[in-house]
Amino acid sequence: MARHSDAKQRILDSAKELIYGSSYANIGVQQICNQADVKKGSFYHFFPSKQALTLEVLEHFWQGIQQMAQQTLLLTDRPPLQRLDLFLRRIGEWHLQHYQQRGHFAGCPMGNLASELSTLDDDMRQAIEAYLAKLQAMFAKVLHEAIAQGELASEIDADYSAEAMVVYIEGLSLMSKLHNDPHWLSRLSPAIWQLIQAKPA
Amino acid sequence: MARHSDAKQRILDSAKELIYGSSYANIGVQQICNQADVKKGSFYHFFPSKQALTLEVLEHFWQGIQQMAQQTLLLTDRPPLQRLDLFLRRIGEWHLQHYQQRGHFAGCPMGNLASELSTLDDDMRQAIEAYLAKLQAMFAKVLHEAIAQGELASEIDADYSAEAMVVYIEGLSLMSKLHNDPHWLSRLSPAIWQLIQAKPA
Repeated sequence: MARHSDAKQRILDSAKELIYGSSYANIGVQQICNQADVKKGSFYHFFPSKQALTLEVLEHFWQGIQQMAQQTLLLTDRPPLQRLDLFLRRIGEWHLQHYQQRGHFAGCPMGNLASELSTLDDDMRQAIEAYLAKLQAMFAKVLHEAIAQGELASEIDADYSAEAMVVYIEGLSLMSKLHNDPHWLSRLSPAIWQLIQAKPA
Repeated sequence: MARHSDAKQRILDSAKELIYGSSYANIGVQQICNQADVKKGSFYHFFPSKQALTLEVLEHFWQGIQQMAQQTLLLTDRPPLQRLDLFLRRIGEWHLQHYQQRGHFAGCPMGNLASELSTLDDDMRQAIEAYLAKLQAMFAKVLHEAIAQGELASEIDADYSAEAMVVYIEGLSLMSKLHNDPHWLSRLSPAIWQLIQAKPA
């Protein structure tokens, strides 16, 4: 049994890895405890339930996305569309890295849980909805900046385009998990730029 | 206990309903038997496993999509892009109908299972990949017709655009399940038309 002081982090890391590579229903508390090398009593000391743990796992994933955004999308010394391009490439690299390490694309952690749980667990549904709204707001901000700096035409609907981009990213993450082919992902990624012209009907 | 002669159909209908509204892992053979009003022995007379049943459920969903396509996309007496529009609206109505009946959007049956099982069950992954390739081929066909009839510019990459449309539809199905709001779905649907201009980088 490893040191108690690391136990919470090991539970989080194990859950993140196991649920992301498989599914929520497929992974039980016992399996997470085994992988984390902690006893069940220790698990319930830190987390009241698998749901509570998974909500914290989602927060960790979101912090990872925010970190990627800070190094790309939110830089202030580059043109907005270049920052957007860097961010989208970084997300693609993150997917690719997982593929290279595990032999399969595993999709978007948010999208996977949204797909599996939206009809079953409204707390989870609302949490994921809130994270993706934050992602959309980051896209909208950079598109508004691109319009203000003359990189995009002023007629472009930045908010709507940002929302359509999130839709495409979630579709792309899901379909890359299905096709499980790095060439497919790099081929289909650029189409997202078409959506920056999107307007509601 | 209802008549044996209907048992197979009742198992299929129950599995279709239960798995679509919940998830694959969450629904067991016993629950399907209970809802179908059949005994477990009868289940295994018709289906060797839950996986085999689910593959047949997917085939039923696909036949439903084909039927929708025959009444819209594959009509010969209308302009290609009008047929595409009719088909996309029909898919939206199908989602909306489920929402009105059950109180929630349940996503794309193919996309849901792709998300849950692509890393866990390669037979299922390949089956879903093949169905979505057929959908993509139908889109590509109608876009090629639109180019041939002068509705779209000849520079448009019909095959690539068709593939990007499938990505968007899957993202839209997943996100409508997450947002669970008919207005969201009707607002974000038209952006798919932007992807018809898409070209690989």
